[in-house]
Amino acid sequence: MPAPEPTPPQSSLPATAAHFGAHVLTEAAARACDIKAALGGPPCVPSMPAPPAVSVPASPPPDAPTAVVATPIPDLERTLRPNGLGTAGLRLIPREQLPTPSKPSSATAGGRPIPGLYHHQVAEPDPVRVEEVSQRIKSWALDEVSLYPEDWEEQFDGFSVGRYMVGCHPDAPTIDHLMIATRLMVAENAVDDCYCEDHGGSPVGLGERLLLAHTALDPVYTTEEYQAPWAKSLHADAPRRAYRSAMGYFGQAASASQTDRYRHDMARLHLGYLAEAAWAQTDHVPEVWEYLAMRQFNNFRPCPTITDTVGGYELPADLHAQSAMQKVIALAGNATTIVNDLYSYTKELDAPGRHLNLPVVIAEREGLSERDAYLKSVDVHNDLMRDFESNAAALAADCPVPTVQRFLRGVAAWVDGNHHWHQTNTYRYSLPDFW
Amino acid sequence: MPAPEPTPPQSSLPATAAHFGAHVLTEAAARACDIKAALGGPPCVPSMPAPPAVSVPASPPPDAPTAVVATPIPDLERTLRPNGLGTAGLRLIPREQLPTPSKPSSATAGGRPIPGLYHHQVAEPDPVRVEEVSQRIKSWALDEVSLYPEDWEEQFDGFSVGRYMVGCHPDAPTIDHLMIATRLMVAENAVDDCYCEDHGGSPVGLGERLLLAHTALDPVYTTEEYQAPWAKSLHADAPRRAYRSAMGYFGQAASASQTDRYRHDMARLHLGYLAEAAWAQTDHVPEVWEYLAMRQFNNFRPCPTITDTVGGYELPADLHAQSAMQKVIALAGNATTIVNDLYSYTKELDAPGRHLNLPVVIAEREGLSERDAYLKSVDVHNDLMRDFESNAAALAADCPVPTVQRFLRGVAAWVDGNHHWHQTNTYRYSLPDFW
Repeated sequence: MPAPEPTPPQSSLPATAAHFGAHVLTEAAARACDIKAALGGPPCVPSMPAPPAVSVPASPPPDAPTAVVATPIPDLERTLRPNGLGTAGLRLIPREQLPTPSKPSSATAGGRPIPGLYHHQVAEPDPVRVEEVSQRIKSWALDEVSLYPEDWEEQFDGFSVGRYMVGCHPDAPTIDHLMIATRLMVAENAVDDCYCEDHGGSPVGLGERLLLAHTALDPVYTTEEYQAPWAKSLHADAPRRAYRSAMGYFGQAASASQTDRYRHDMARLHLGYLAEAAWAQTDHVPEVWEYLAMRQFNNFRPCPTITDTVGGYELPADLHAQSAMQKVIALAGNATTIVNDLYSYTKELDAPGRHLNLPVVIAEREGLSERDAYLKSVDVHNDLMRDFESNAAALAADCPVPTVQRFLRGVAAWVDGNHHWHQTNTYRYSLPDFW
Repeated sequence: MPAPEPTPPQSSLPATAAHFGAHVLTEAAARACDIKAALGGPPCVPSMPAPPAVSVPASPPPDAPTAVVATPIPDLERTLRPNGLGTAGLRLIPREQLPTPSKPSSATAGGRPIPGLYHHQVAEPDPVRVEEVSQRIKSWALDEVSLYPEDWEEQFDGFSVGRYMVGCHPDAPTIDHLMIATRLMVAENAVDDCYCEDHGGSPVGLGERLLLAHTALDPVYTTEEYQAPWAKSLHADAPRRAYRSAMGYFGQAASASQTDRYRHDMARLHLGYLAEAAWAQTDHVPEVWEYLAMRQFNNFRPCPTITDTVGGYELPADLHAQSAMQKVIALAGNATTIVNDLYSYTKELDAPGRHLNLPVVIAEREGLSERDAYLKSVDVHNDLMRDFESNAAALAADCPVPTVQRFLRGVAAWVDGNHHWHQTNTYRYSLPDFW
């Protein structure tokens, strides 16, 4: 027989579904959806009317002079926005407090959105939560993991990670839940900074450093003689101390499957770093598609995919693994990551050496001016965002399972919060003069 | 609060278990086990008597002159051996035919076991199945993925991959199931050979090559303009053609969660290759514990963990993710991988350049003679094997779920089949003159 296409993989879930025969209705419904989708049958929406088709606003012109603030899309909004219909009823843990909706970000914080960038404006993150998370993350960094020397304090404060994570997880029930995400984000940045980038990083030997750091997430099991020096190594430098501690807290809140999911996403991230390092070492500029493939791995993905743990619930592993969900997650991660390429463009141009980002690669490979390459990169982002939203809406319609709906809303909230943080973090980012 | 230990991660499965309230008994039992284990409570064996404690044979002396063939351990044997009590009743798909038990391997195939190596003798793989798989895998390699030029045929035949996979998967219900494992094994070897090792491999640029090959397993989702050249790239060389095709067949038989598991294990493998490459590039010999950590990633793990797909059933994702199961899998993978280091020792010594393996690293780092370092490596293997078996037996006792029991037996069968193949593959391997 001919070799089948590798994606999307077909599923043998019928056997599993039979094995799980006594599942609650929503689980069974989700499985049925997945099976039918895998077999090419019509989507199944048991006991609930199918939402109307999602309409997506037209693509902006390539050099649109002003920000494209999303036109409200009622059905998609209802499905994906944190304040959408029925969200409160889905909360599994009562929230300590709801963030107070405030004025749109551009009125309360610095920074303007990239002209023409398709995004959703969100409320400024709850300042009470931001203050509490900011204080606690600094204590953790200094007192628990000795993350950085004193003269890096300004950079740490400028990172505004408390504001970042509060904005990305509006449905976190408590500060403790927000701290799970915040520690991991800081740890991920410490590894990137210290091993790969600004603070002593290098592509030489990176494969060793990342693997040994990865063992703080995915533990080594070996003989007694060698287990001890491995365990000691997790305290040997700031990146490993941070990974180890942040993962410990995460593991207290996450299920075994959620922990496995996070490990997998971090393995992807580390593979992405290593592909980028290979290019840096040989001073090679990849093809645009190669860069985008690398960037699907060197990607924010591990951050939105913990939205359920941070929200105090669990997207079941079998629903997370569905090919439709994997596609939504990949598209969301890719959109958020290109946002980073676009907002950090001038920062990276100013840094020593050539730093690959999408505009730089497009300019080099497609012979475009810096401005045209940047504007084309905005288009690439916008296409990824729309693909994310349309695929998420389709999946939400096909699988009306509360955890699926909430997870998709959580990922969308992370996408929006990520954009807001990039737009408003004028300590780190400024826009090029292309308009 | 103080930073918790990162392993084993605690579980929030009570919430999940409640969510899955109507699960069948065995699932609920397994979840309860996991919860109680995570909370430090006694193991739960609902409705079944706890098996007696497992006794493990004493460690052999470091320079034992003959092979340590395992002393029968009744309870462990019953739990882990493919012919153990109740195996037939657990088969979900009828087998085309049962392999005919034959004489012990050393009587029917060349090669002697490493003196002092703790292992289990197994029957010679069913010759009818071996012949069929061998023919079909060669057709696939030549006709479907153009894997190798004609002058590599002898090496391909010498690999004896059909015999290898038939021996490692004695419970595969059909030849089609065996082919799933065999294609993946060949593809994994093609990537290792062509990108990392003998056939043009190099540590330079390896991060790029492995990531692009990994996208044959974990697809890229990008904009239409760049999706097409990515899809085309999967046909660009033998490793990618092989990964793409083998993954396509695997995905037809595997559930979404099994596919996700395989992707994760392959990401681990690629991280391991890249750590080893970092050392090769800087001609650095790591500490022994660092080598062992790398070898937990550059590891056979992706092969035994597909035992359920190849067996035609599924170990549910939540049971696979349990920390106790993760530990068993890691220990099994580590034992099988050190077997490879030991049997390929003389082959690697004869190859150009310095090839790291456990005896070489121990000799260099601990100042031992080649012989003493080799014998110490045998001890390391034996400890890993015993830890694997005791942990597997404990997990089997704690979680009397049919798929858990069968999966553990499948992993143990893979471990034994892997040893048998290494021992008897005299085309590739010969022992050093240390006894």
